[in-house]
Amino acid sequence: MTNIFSDRISDVPRSFIREILKVAVDSSVISFAGGLPNRELFPVEELQAAANKVFESAGKEVLQYSNSEGYPKLREYISKRYLEKKGLDIAVENILITSGSQQGLDLLGKTFLNEGDDVIIEEPGYLGAIQAFSVYKSVFNPVPVGEDGMDIDCLKELISAKSPKLMYTVPNFQNPSGISYPEKNRYAVADVLRDKSIFLIEDDPYGDLRFTGAEKESFGKILPENTILLGSFSKTIVPSFRLGWITAPNDTIMERLIIAKQASDLHTNYFTQRVICQYLADNDLDKHIDKIIKVYNSQRLAMIKSIEKYFPSDVSHTHPEGGMFLWVTLPEGVSSMELFNLAIKDKVAFVPGNPFYINKDKTNTFRLNFSCVDEKTIETGIKRLAKSIEKLLS
Amino acid sequence: MTNIFSDRISDVPRSFIREILKVAVDSSVISFAGGLPNRELFPVEELQAAANKVFESAGKEVLQYSNSEGYPKLREYISKRYLEKKGLDIAVENILITSGSQQGLDLLGKTFLNEGDDVIIEEPGYLGAIQAFSVYKSVFNPVPVGEDGMDIDCLKELISAKSPKLMYTVPNFQNPSGISYPEKNRYAVADVLRDKSIFLIEDDPYGDLRFTGAEKESFGKILPENTILLGSFSKTIVPSFRLGWITAPNDTIMERLIIAKQASDLHTNYFTQRVICQYLADNDLDKHIDKIIKVYNSQRLAMIKSIEKYFPSDVSHTHPEGGMFLWVTLPEGVSSMELFNLAIKDKVAFVPGNPFYINKDKTNTFRLNFSCVDEKTIETGIKRLAKSIEKLLS
Repeated sequence: MTNIFSDRISDVPRSFIREILKVAVDSSVISFAGGLPNRELFPVEELQAAANKVFESAGKEVLQYSNSEGYPKLREYISKRYLEKKGLDIAVENILITSGSQQGLDLLGKTFLNEGDDVIIEEPGYLGAIQAFSVYKSVFNPVPVGEDGMDIDCLKELISAKSPKLMYTVPNFQNPSGISYPEKNRYAVADVLRDKSIFLIEDDPYGDLRFTGAEKESFGKILPENTILLGSFSKTIVPSFRLGWITAPNDTIMERLIIAKQASDLHTNYFTQRVICQYLADNDLDKHIDKIIKVYNSQRLAMIKSIEKYFPSDVSHTHPEGGMFLWVTLPEGVSSMELFNLAIKDKVAFVPGNPFYINKDKTNTFRLNFSCVDEKTIETGIKRLAKSIEKLLS
Repeated sequence: MTNIFSDRISDVPRSFIREILKVAVDSSVISFAGGLPNRELFPVEELQAAANKVFESAGKEVLQYSNSEGYPKLREYISKRYLEKKGLDIAVENILITSGSQQGLDLLGKTFLNEGDDVIIEEPGYLGAIQAFSVYKSVFNPVPVGEDGMDIDCLKELISAKSPKLMYTVPNFQNPSGISYPEKNRYAVADVLRDKSIFLIEDDPYGDLRFTGAEKESFGKILPENTILLGSFSKTIVPSFRLGWITAPNDTIMERLIIAKQASDLHTNYFTQRVICQYLADNDLDKHIDKIIKVYNSQRLAMIKSIEKYFPSDVSHTHPEGGMFLWVTLPEGVSSMELFNLAIKDKVAFVPGNPFYINKDKTNTFRLNFSCVDEKTIETGIKRLAKSIEKLLS
């Protein structure tokens, strides 16, 4: 029956992580597999208060259809925050509220990609972006990233050999690896792209969750004419509202994104846009983020401590300065998928590296999440995982 | 700069209605142009109570990420209602919650349509569907609809000449025309499609808003294996939550729709899914719908009365049994766009028929909305419009 479907959807695999998470639901399993923010930190009472205010002050209006661009005051807040926090000058008119960052990716695919168009993507790279662009049948061109940022030689080669339309990056505390591009590397990337007809997507859901180290310049500052920023309230406030945004580098692109948005879902849930805006007016977001940072950082440190204590010395890991993830590399030739099958029996779960690569069935890497597990459980989980690694290596 | 965009988005025009509505914002203009439900009827207090219950009973859970299919209890409610109201047996597992019906259309386009695939669409037809499918570069094949339903000869001809994958219909109180397919016509349509490899989309946002006449059998009953139902809470509860659904006729289609949903926005706003579900548990939806029906029906009758009193006798109109719209036909050769330009000066607005047709620049038809204007204002507005018509015809 496959032939009834479009080619695009026949090619997109069901989310690998989704399948992994199904295995990890058993409550005796300690799971480092998820990618969720820690729900203990959700500002439940504050959001309830904001919702009541919105119902009482504008009940009928906030329940009606609204405009495709999004609530103007929320877009003003985002514009102002870009200016204050990053020195970025983003016009309110060029901010489009999306149903989460994932929709931002879908709208960019829809707006820019014809079948066969080249897209540059980090390797390892964010699964959701691979899935979103796959739908538009783009050709992925992976560029390795690591603690030093993006591989500039590889990028240069690709840019001179092909004509990629989009380049997708998560320069801060990347999912899956937790790495950040050093500032020097960002300037080097910008130098390669400058004056080329390519748009760099800076997806930055974790940027506010910096625990340590200095803030790095955004591509929006270094390469403003070619940079499309994606932002989200999912990691700093709550994910279930599905509130994210795209910034367009110019009016022409904004106009096309609005058309794509209209055709996709008319507009983002207006009631929750208003609730978030009320929450932001009545609360100090940075103070709330500080609470998140404190918890995640302690858990990150606990994880690193346990890894260094229990894992064999030929297993390496990244040193994230923020975010929710850490990336582990097993010795060359060792399969993280095999490790996963052993680890599940030892009641611990993670995400094997495979789905974060383009066309790679076997990898020696895997992702660990530290935002959702408390410090004590982290130590127990990493200990279990160390045992599974020992079994695999012996 | 157009060449940077995908072909698909370069071809989709900015919403015509959106442009029309901009002209109609002047508060001295009586607008029959909108397509909004009447906000005076929104159950604001009930939704606020439901939201508070949800915050208090499950605050952390309802703010977290959720599954792509949607909240199981909400899908159970929808399944049960289909059984009770229409005798339809729709498995909970085959209901996908979408970010409004518009996203349902986008997901169907994404899942089924390759460039150049034939799609059958009603003429006049729903603009949002034309916009959504245009993105996937389908070829539209219009089939006329009127008070007698769909033109069966035209449908037969198309089905034998081409191999359309999808057919889009709004069989109850259609947008824009307000017409409904008589039951006999539905069986005739089903007979043409039976055993063909085509899926009929029954988009039914207004079906619950029946003022008069007998309930008609759903295509979901007559042609279950080929029918995809689209539903929405936008017209019966509130639109700003963007809550709709698709029913898949089988598991294979459901699986592909879920992949499309994941790639598009991960999942629909989970908090508002929970609020609606709580609202439905604590309130009688049918009683609420009765209130809407009473108001809309009075307004419909007022509009028909005024039309018959003030419009010239060679101007005809449809007789909707429900919904929100009524369709007017001017004498042959008279342009409704020219009428629009006159009417705006006379401080009354409507939507000219053009955008509801495929490739037609000049039409003698237009859409009137009666859900948002009170009876007295309806009379004033129709009187103004009658004057504009007289000017145009003289």
